[in-house]
Formats: sequence, C-alpha cells, structure tokens
Amino acid sequence: MTHPHSSSNSSVHQYTRSDLKALPSRYRAQLVNSLTGFKAANLLGTQNLEGLTNLAMVSSAVHLGAEPALIGLVMRPPVVERHSLENIQSTGVYTLNHVHPEILQQAHQSAAKYPRSVSEFEAVDLDVEYPYAFAAPAVAQSRLQIGLRLVEIMPIKHNGTEFVIGEIEWVQIKGDILHEDGYADIEQLDSVTVSGLDNYHRTSQIERLGYPEPESK
Amino acid sequence: MTHPHSSSNSSVHQYTRSDLKALPSRYRAQLVNSLTGFKAANLLGTQNLEGLTNLAMVSSAVHLGAEPALIGLVMRPPVVERHSLENIQSTGVYTLNHVHPEILQQAHQSAAKYPRSVSEFEAVDLDVEYPYAFAAPAVAQSRLQIGLRLVEIMPIKHNGTEFVIGEIEWVQIKGDILHEDGYADIEQLDSVTVSGLDNYHRTSQIERLGYPEPESK
Repeated sequence: MTHPHSSSNSSVHQYTRSDLKALPSRYRAQLVNSLTGFKAANLLGTQNLEGLTNLAMVSSAVHLGAEPALIGLVMRPPVVERHSLENIQSTGVYTLNHVHPEILQQAHQSAAKYPRSVSEFEAVDLDVEYPYAFAAPAVAQSRLQIGLRLVEIMPIKHNGTEFVIGEIEWVQIKGDILHEDGYADIEQLDSVTVSGLDNYHRTSQIERLGYPEPESK
Repeated sequence: MTHPHSSSNSSVHQYTRSDLKALPSRYRAQLVNSLTGFKAANLLGTQNLEGLTNLAMVSSAVHLGAEPALIGLVMRPPVVERHSLENIQSTGVYTLNHVHPEILQQAHQSAAKYPRSVSEFEAVDLDVEYPYAFAAPAVAQSRLQIGLRLVEIMPIKHNGTEFVIGEIEWVQIKGDILHEDGYADIEQLDSVTVSGLDNYHRTSQIERLGYPEPESK
C-alpha cells in the first residue's frame, strides 16, 4: 500500500489522517510538503561567533506583521539547519535572501548536509556581503536581501520544530520594482517560488486585485 | 518623505528599521508584505456552531511537519479573520482550499469585511461541500482541499497575532497530479501564488532538483 487512496473516480485522490500515517516516510514528506501551496524560496545566511559563515535554503518564511516588521521561520530538526539555528541563537542576527534562476542550482545545493566546518557560501560558490556592517552574511548575488534581528524562538512542542521570529533591521532591493503604493514587484526580480521539497517555479502575473470592498462583487 | 531610501545608485533601494517605521502605514504594509517572497493562496473555510459558514483568503499557511502532518496559519487582528478564528476556536476544525484562476476574483473578494451574519460563500458565490461529513465547510470548486483539526493556538505577543496550528484530518486532490515519490504537482492544478497583499501569479516550472548531496556541486 504505497499509494493509498480511496477515490470515487480515478482523478480524485483522498487521504485521511490514518492514510497519511501509513505512508512510507519519504512519500509522506513529499506529499505533505506539497499541500500548503507555493512557498517562498529564501537563502538563510548566518555565521558563528568566529565568523564561519553558513547558508541554507529555507521555504518556511512567513510574514507576521508590518509594524513592527516581523518575519517567522520554521526551523526543523535536521543537521543542516541546526548550524543555522545555533548561529542565530549565538549572534542574534541572520539574513534572508531571495533566489533567482541564475543562482538556483547553487541555492538548492546549499541545503546539502555539509560538515559544520564547511561554509556553504564557499561550497556552492556564492559571495558574502555585509550591508550596514551587519553581523550576519548576506548573499551578494541575491536581488532582495533582508537583515533580521532575533526577537523570540517559540518551540512547537508537537513536533520538535522551532518558530523563529525576527524583526527586520534592514532591506536592500536591487531593482526599480517598487510601485507607488509600496508594493515590491518581486516577479520583476525573477524571484522563484518552490513547491514540495525540490520543485522550483517562475511566476507570471495574473492581476493585482486591490483592496476588496463588501459592496463590489 | 513618502518613499525614503538611501540608494547609492538609482536601482538599489535600502530601508532600515527606522526608515520602515517612518513610512505611512499603508505603504509600509504593502512593502513589508512583499518581502518574504511568494506565498500560498488559500481559502480558509469555517463555520460557527449554528452552521453559519465563513470564508476568508489567507496567505500565511506554512508547512510545519509531515509526521504528524501539521500546518501553521498566522491570524491577524482584522475583523474578517476574527470570525474565522472564533469559529476555529468553537468548532475545533477548519479547511484550507487552493485557489485557481477561475475562482480567483471570488476568492480575493472573500477577504472583504462582510458583516458577521453574511456567509462569504454566498456573498462571492462559491459552493460549500463537506467531505467526510467534516464539521467545517470546504470550497466545492477548489481542486485541493485540506481538512484540519485545531492542535494549538500560540499567541505571538510582539504584535497580537495568533499562530494557529492544525493537524491534517483529510486531503482531497482533484486531479492526477501525484508523482511516484509522493510529490503533488500543484502547478498542474493551476494553483495560484500571491505576492504582497493583492498580486496573484501563475507559475511555470523551472526544474525539480532532487535531494542535494554534499559531494555533487
């Protein structure tokens, strides 16, 4: 029973909680990671107190609020991200960096399990820069970089992950993509989006729909 | 100073924490909501104990883990989402429903501030269905529906938002989009992604990159 589903017709696939639990672990991980929808692809830049840099692809950045400007990040137990989390805890700062197609292979490769002594910047051949002399490395090639200061780490007790909350210290956007109203048109930066664990996508705009009013329909 | 930035050249736009604080509130909301990257567009379906249904567009669904299968959702203070949050608290269940272009206008419109007595399903003309006789309404037109049971609500004290954690009770996928390894190819469902507060995008696949190994480069 590797693909359990009780479909009433061939194109509808259904899984219950117990179906999901019965799936092989890797299959379940692929499936469940696909369900929330498209995700942001960001490179997480950190360094330890000795200045050894670390880079990891993350897809769990979530907007928490604009005032103060807060971003959440789900950090899972795997080894790779532990280095990042330890660095965030010891330095209190980190960066998020948008990924575009020209650096996608390198960005994805940074998620491999390198030993602690290896900087993923060097391993995947991306360059470090330090806007505002910030104590966490940004990715020089990235077109939208965010410097964050740790606000709180909330443990999620149900699965051992951590919800890392940071406030934006600075933003650097390389491109004239700002609309009159403040919207940053990230499609113009060619920022990619990710689905599941490893599928990357370009976007093409459908429409800006504006602020919805109850009267209109 | 409506568009403050200290650019060293015309195409680099920089904002510090204090620049962000000095921005007009709507401009700041547009800007900061754009920064994390592309987001999932989901319709959140709930109902109260009397069966009055509620629908709201949300862009903050985040994958928390596959075993157990957990999804997080950031709920902000606005009125519209308060109805949803109250319903989730009273019934303990809710649904997330992917949005495709044919229902995008209606989905976006559901975010308008309707009075509590109005069901957004009716107001925007989307149909209710109850897979598995679940006690929360799903959007019949949606091609990927998820039923969730509330696990925990974690208050985020820094801005008054709530992080709502739910476990997947059931999933229904309308389309033969499952790959051999479990990946659900949501681009084949035409699921849309959102940037900022109101810009919607289709996707086009670049590449699945597989599991990265430290040896390869």
